[in-house]
Amino acid sequence: YEFYQKQLQVYRDLPACTRDGASIRLQANLEFLQEAEPARRNGAEGVGLLRTEFMYMARQQPPDEEEQLQAYRQILASFRPDPVTIRTLDVGGDKFASGICLADEANPAMGLRSIRLSLWEQRLLRQQLRAILRASAEGPVRLMFPMISGLSEVRQCRALLDEVMAELRLEGHPFDARLPVGIMVETPSAVFLADVLAEEVDFFSIGTNDLIQYCLAVDRSNEHVAYLYEPFHPAILRALTRVADAAHQAGIGLSVCGEMAGEPMFSIVLLALGYRELSMNSSGISRVKKLVRQWDSHSNSVLRETLLRQKTAADVLRCLQQQLASAFPEAVPELDY
Amino acid sequence: YEFYQKQLQVYRDLPACTRDGASIRLQANLEFLQEAEPARRNGAEGVGLLRTEFMYMARQQPPDEEEQLQAYRQILASFRPDPVTIRTLDVGGDKFASGICLADEANPAMGLRSIRLSLWEQRLLRQQLRAILRASAEGPVRLMFPMISGLSEVRQCRALLDEVMAELRLEGHPFDARLPVGIMVETPSAVFLADVLAEEVDFFSIGTNDLIQYCLAVDRSNEHVAYLYEPFHPAILRALTRVADAAHQAGIGLSVCGEMAGEPMFSIVLLALGYRELSMNSSGISRVKKLVRQWDSHSNSVLRETLLRQKTAADVLRCLQQQLASAFPEAVPELDY
Ligand SMILES: [Mg+2]
Ligand SMILES: [Mg+2]
Repeated sequence: YEFYQKQLQVYRDLPACTRDGASIRLQANLEFLQEAEPARRNGAEGVGLLRTEFMYMARQQPPDEEEQLQAYRQILASFRPDPVTIRTLDVGGDKFASGICLADEANPAMGLRSIRLSLWEQRLLRQQLRAILRASAEGPVRLMFPMISGLSEVRQCRALLDEVMAELRLEGHPFDARLPVGIMVETPSAVFLADVLAEEVDFFSIGTNDLIQYCLAVDRSNEHVAYLYEPFHPAILRALTRVADAAHQAGIGLSVCGEMAGEPMFSIVLLALGYRELSMNSSGISRVKKLVRQWDSHSNSVLRETLLRQKTAADVLRCLQQQLASAFPEAVPELDY
Repeated sequence: YEFYQKQLQVYRDLPACTRDGASIRLQANLEFLQEAEPARRNGAEGVGLLRTEFMYMARQQPPDEEEQLQAYRQILASFRPDPVTIRTLDVGGDKFASGICLADEANPAMGLRSIRLSLWEQRLLRQQLRAILRASAEGPVRLMFPMISGLSEVRQCRALLDEVMAELRLEGHPFDARLPVGIMVETPSAVFLADVLAEEVDFFSIGTNDLIQYCLAVDRSNEHVAYLYEPFHPAILRALTRVADAAHQAGIGLSVCGEMAGEPMFSIVLLALGYRELSMNSSGISRVKKLVRQWDSHSNSVLRETLLRQKTAADVLRCLQQQLASAFPEAVPELDY
């Protein structure tokens, strides 16, 4: 096992290119400040998802603007000149934070959570947007809103952002007025509306956990229905395809920042469906990079067609294993699923 | 108001045809045995959704096969020669029943409910299938499975059905071996997979409540996010379109049995998207029939294109009001929403 880890180290400084030279961007998901440096050392080309919840956890008062600003600056410094994608507060559902009063809900995963909570009680979001914008003066920041279900929410977020920008301008704080503004695609409605949403945002980032959960109507933390939580479900592949096609057509950014992006076998599926930017726990980057470097992106269109013809998750997995066995004649431990 | 009710009565015995002669089938949703006769009198052409939960409620023991058979026979007798669509037990989530032990779940709406519960603890489902099949010997029965999220579940249900048929054959009980077997389309995954599912079932029936709830990731019983529960959301219209197109392409049956089918304004949307069979609480049938008889189905394709171009629920409603104002120059009280 140690030998295997050593082997993977050689990939850290190699570019994430396929055999035929298509370049894939592998970024890091960060959950804590201390993960920034290790992620950089693991070869992350920027941060695809900075979860900002850590600043709100296990404390009485939410962090003030300055404290947030310092944290964002520190992460930007670690990754410069690569971009850092900051997601606004994503609590509620199964995640809680200080300073926020949550209602007692029968189905919290479909309740007042995430961007809904932020837009309902705008104080925290405003403050966070101020800190994110101010950080953008010092390095490439991308702003990302979670749990968007329709265009009205995008417009509400943008209106709030405009207000905060005007405020900062008045106060003389510098910021990047053209920072990319994107959304997480993690509700089925965002998938159905992807072409419409693509007109008004700069990038999509797929949140696989929630997307799978809502598409299949399966609470992923519920052991009784865990057998139904299938990332390789053909419905999920179709949803992913629809989002990728809409992003490409509109010429906007596209990435995946859900857990599945770091699953080597799933990362091959994502390449086949047209994804070129994957963000994951940084410990998984070398593993995925190793695969990417052996993959020939000419195989993508064949694999894509074959995958999209499959009718059940078991069919998808079987077909994937067959296709990969011929693409990787030597055994590849990363491809066990 | 009484005058208005009187007015509607004249529609009871008129056929549900559009002005240009396209015939629309309006059926009843039944929740209790006693609703059958009034529904028939309200002009329902069959039952689009028989909720079988009533037999399991407020009692210690689930009903036995004979008791169920009597209930189904009685309803068939009320509607003969029109078909009765019997949905298998749909409990869990927010619905409970006797004889079933439910786990404590954090998000019951995405938990072990409905067909998942039936397939997990097959005893009740087997017994119910026996009763439904035996009833099919005496009139046109359609069998419907709820909450299907993929093809594997359809195949499991069909395998169980085959087993039960073999059993009944051995015992010498007559039944309709070719009774139509359909599914409720109420998970986003069933929408994404509609073309695949259409190959292995005889009809789709849309459950609007759950479909809207999962697509938008909004618990419809949660007051804090009720403002996000929008039946006219463009994502919902796209989902409905996808299902209708898949059903038409495969030449299988298609209907809507969710609450929204009885909402006059929504029923016009459904006509425009290609639906010709709507099932609703029978008290709403006259209202919808009145509208249908004034509607010209030549307007459908224009309305469809216009609706599918809208970007927000508010846009959809505005556009619908405009279009309907020109189609119905006289004020139509049914069209308030
Ligand atoms: Mg999420
Ligand atoms: Mg339902």
